[in-house]
Amino acid sequence: MQKLVVRSFAISLDGFSAARDQSQKEPFGKDGLRLMDWAFNTKLFGERFGRPGGQEGIDNDFIARSDDNIGASIMGRRMFGPPHDVADKEAWRGWWGENPVYHHPVFVLSHQRRASLEMEGGTTFTFVTDGIESALSQAFAAAGGRDVRLAGGAATVRQYMKAGLIDELHLVQVPILLGQGERMFEDLGGVVDLYECVEFTPSKAVSHLRIVKKDLR
Amino acid sequence: MQKLVVRSFAISLDGFSAARDQSQKEPFGKDGLRLMDWAFNTKLFGERFGRPGGQEGIDNDFIARSDDNIGASIMGRRMFGPPHDVADKEAWRGWWGENPVYHHPVFVLSHQRRASLEMEGGTTFTFVTDGIESALSQAFAAAGGRDVRLAGGAATVRQYMKAGLIDELHLVQVPILLGQGERMFEDLGGVVDLYECVEFTPSKAVSHLRIVKKDLR
Repeated sequence: MQKLVVRSFAISLDGFSAARDQSQKEPFGKDGLRLMDWAFNTKLFGERFGRPGGQEGIDNDFIARSDDNIGASIMGRRMFGPPHDVADKEAWRGWWGENPVYHHPVFVLSHQRRASLEMEGGTTFTFVTDGIESALSQAFAAAGGRDVRLAGGAATVRQYMKAGLIDELHLVQVPILLGQGERMFEDLGGVVDLYECVEFTPSKAVSHLRIVKKDLR
Repeated sequence: MQKLVVRSFAISLDGFSAARDQSQKEPFGKDGLRLMDWAFNTKLFGERFGRPGGQEGIDNDFIARSDDNIGASIMGRRMFGPPHDVADKEAWRGWWGENPVYHHPVFVLSHQRRASLEMEGGTTFTFVTDGIESALSQAFAAAGGRDVRLAGGAATVRQYMKAGLIDELHLVQVPILLGQGERMFEDLGGVVDLYECVEFTPSKAVSHLRIVKKDLR
């Protein structure tokens, strides 16, 4: 069975997975990029994003596992961008340059139809305007039997979780306070009861938590 | 300078420090007592609450430090009780028996005047009806130069934090999902910017975080 999974999804001590005021310079909002310091400090993620010299160890292992058996991704409209301060919105091709880190089909939830973007390195961005279940079907079909990773942001993760469609989440609790922003755990109603935290692995920097849907254990 | 501190205050992965439906049988709400498993499993806290045989180590050290230099406590109305399902509300003398664990003056925020309760072992419960600042002045005066511990619950911690009156918090992130309940980090506005997480010490069971007011560093 193919699964829909969330991986390496960072949450601040006060519950936010992005700060307010996302902009071209600050994709995680004001001072929000601190949420990803633990990742930038790893060997794998650091190399991927131009900060070589990072460390091996627990955090690096989780980054490595984040791509395990993933054949396609889904992301929300705001995660793809553009942020409000980009003038030419139609020319926007995502935050990740011409050779994005995904290297597989990515389905972007959108309100506006747009032709797919074929990037270098195997990444294609396909814009889906008919809802989260359609995006999931398309992603499962494109994943070649592998799992689908739900990349974010928080609003999109919440939407899929509320629909009971997420099989497993790897969350990363980061010991910083953001004060304001987008919450992951909010307005989820009773659906949280379907999930259980089955792994708690702290590193020196953060806590890694693995949460699974109970009927899958 | 005397300080107002929060110690060993547990928060679930989804941000709650108590579950819903507090009752006489379940002081932390439905299934909420799981928030305190890490504490019951320590030597010190276990002995105190009738579960001997607990462990030493990181969690036990934090329990020990929770009482360091504390001369008085403050707690909210609902933390003292009684819960809704207690019939004789006037006979209620707290959750902690005739010899409560505090052994010092405890100031209970209340809407109703009530005579102080002098318990065994040095604990007195004094009911304060004229607000959080009055309770704090009384507690500082009663603490004999030592610090005051704000025991909880979440609503009371939030109230003092919003007023900028808390100097330091030791929070405990517990890897469980509660789904619903009382949030610690909610509706705090800009006051969170005054605080900073300065320590992250995970144990095998939980993450301990120490948060201090910036101007005190």
